[in-house]
Amino acid sequence: MDKPCFTIHPVANKDLEKEVVDRLNNLTKPIDSLGRLEEFVLRYCLCRGTAAAKVSRMKIFTFAGDHGITEENITPYPSEVTYQMALNMAAGGAAISVMCRKAGIDCTVVDMGVKSSFQEFPGLLIRKIAGGTKNFKKAPAMSREECLKALDVGQDLAKGSACDLLGVGEMGIGNTSSASALYSLLLDVDPEETIGAGTGSVGALFEKKKQVVRDAVLFHRREWDRTPFEALRRVGGFEIAGMTGMILGGAQSRIPVVIDGFVATAAALVAMKMEPEVKDYLFFAHASAEHFHKPFLASQGIEPILSLNMRLGEGTGSVLAMQIIVQAMECYHRMATFESAGVSGKE
Amino acid sequence: MDKPCFTIHPVANKDLEKEVVDRLNNLTKPIDSLGRLEEFVLRYCLCRGTAAAKVSRMKIFTFAGDHGITEENITPYPSEVTYQMALNMAAGGAAISVMCRKAGIDCTVVDMGVKSSFQEFPGLLIRKIAGGTKNFKKAPAMSREECLKALDVGQDLAKGSACDLLGVGEMGIGNTSSASALYSLLLDVDPEETIGAGTGSVGALFEKKKQVVRDAVLFHRREWDRTPFEALRRVGGFEIAGMTGMILGGAQSRIPVVIDGFVATAAALVAMKMEPEVKDYLFFAHASAEHFHKPFLASQGIEPILSLNMRLGEGTGSVLAMQIIVQAMECYHRMATFESAGVSGKE
Repeated sequence: MDKPCFTIHPVANKDLEKEVVDRLNNLTKPIDSLGRLEEFVLRYCLCRGTAAAKVSRMKIFTFAGDHGITEENITPYPSEVTYQMALNMAAGGAAISVMCRKAGIDCTVVDMGVKSSFQEFPGLLIRKIAGGTKNFKKAPAMSREECLKALDVGQDLAKGSACDLLGVGEMGIGNTSSASALYSLLLDVDPEETIGAGTGSVGALFEKKKQVVRDAVLFHRREWDRTPFEALRRVGGFEIAGMTGMILGGAQSRIPVVIDGFVATAAALVAMKMEPEVKDYLFFAHASAEHFHKPFLASQGIEPILSLNMRLGEGTGSVLAMQIIVQAMECYHRMATFESAGVSGKE
Repeated sequence: MDKPCFTIHPVANKDLEKEVVDRLNNLTKPIDSLGRLEEFVLRYCLCRGTAAAKVSRMKIFTFAGDHGITEENITPYPSEVTYQMALNMAAGGAAISVMCRKAGIDCTVVDMGVKSSFQEFPGLLIRKIAGGTKNFKKAPAMSREECLKALDVGQDLAKGSACDLLGVGEMGIGNTSSASALYSLLLDVDPEETIGAGTGSVGALFEKKKQVVRDAVLFHRREWDRTPFEALRRVGGFEIAGMTGMILGGAQSRIPVVIDGFVATAAALVAMKMEPEVKDYLFFAHASAEHFHKPFLASQGIEPILSLNMRLGEGTGSVLAMQIIVQAMECYHRMATFESAGVSGKE
């Protein structure tokens, strides 16, 4: 079974770029005065391949999965919280549910690999690959088949979404350990640098988390074949693979994807390592409070939209960033031009 | 006629702070994981004086005025643009109109001192003090009576707004020169540091702008009585005084005010120099692209909500920041608690 093959349409298009910029420059505002909002408009139109691109249907997918690594007791919350929070999201009580409702953005929780079984519930999609990954300190987190299946789920959801802007987020007790291990493997960085507090590991718990991830990374580094797929399979998680699949599927369908925080960015890193062109389809929502997130974004030349010290995940940063992208597109489409409003230009 | 006297209720309240933080800590999220959103919730509740504070009615006022200093030919756009853009705002074609509509925020343009006369128009309030300020290179921009009147207009609008969150913005060709002069006088900083490109002054135009403001600041520094009111009167503008009045009136009525960019922040500086307690009632929306804005905010220990390189004014940064404050308050009021959602806490 080979690494999945994806075709991504390159976004660069000088003619289209000129068309969008000309249109922006005719709006009743000094040139460039909307700052990064104009950058977002241009990127969005280039992704969609038309200067008439509109954001008419948005959706955030929150991928949920459990992690075998939690049996090492490295998280302050028990792993049941993944299941409980997924239900809370579907029932409308989580931060992501509240924010999406207010912003008029659809949201769906996807059970990619939560330990407990769900009943059918509106707002919850059951795509369970298995009841949690294996403990990646001792073995690869997923089999090749499982990992491919998880990628497929995300990819299919993107392609079938009928959306023109997607957001990804996650829920999974233990998944900052998984994300840190991914950054460490893929970037060849010591886990000492990539590990942060997650949901709140401090003191002895934090030291233990570091030790466990460091051991695991050493173990996998020896056996790893250097492909991003294998890194994902070995130390990733079902929800992380789901996000990677959605990112790749979004880019293939020319649907830009808004990346939430530290864990979602690890999924994006896997996708970008698989297909570097993916990067142009991504909006990085925010620099989170999680230790390694800011330096990683900076190292990739990525300037996130927001920096609000959030570290909740779920897709909460994506919602706020999507509201800003929507406002940028509103200005682009609805502002008067100098001519239509009878406003004098520069002298 | 004396400096107006304002009474501001101090926001500090340890019991209330504990009540708000306890409530935040019961919500289904790791402690502090909403980052600065939790800071905004706390500040908002402290301003309103209750842990049950809700954002139910928001409004942005865009104050418009013309500037005599434009006769020195230091702006790329003719001063008629102030009038034209105010009409564009009222008609719904400006960036502020488009964004407010999308965000569900009321917006009103206030003619504080536009040169041309308006017909009555919905969404436009006529509170004209005079048809533009005097050229502050040669004389004080306003008389004491005019300046007091402009402060009163803003203050009365805040008090009569029936809002629980206000935003301020401005439109006025020439007003970055006025704002730079205010920063220079009030902070005793060389105009070389406080002057930026404004709507787009470059090359010879930019050099001229610097020279004119430098001369004006030297002139007023000699005669200035060191009070913030006199600084405002000498080098400010009608729309800037309107914003200062609204900021003071908002704080007096315990209504937090969201400050837009470089020019609105100059109005806030005047208000904070008059009454330092005002600062606790302010949310600084964003660090604008205008040269001196970021260093000024940093010097005051103010961390703005956004940093998107915008430099349009009108209140456009305030809209985006208000959407974030609203989301913070939504989370605070609508998220489930660990108990209500049956989610396990830390082990």
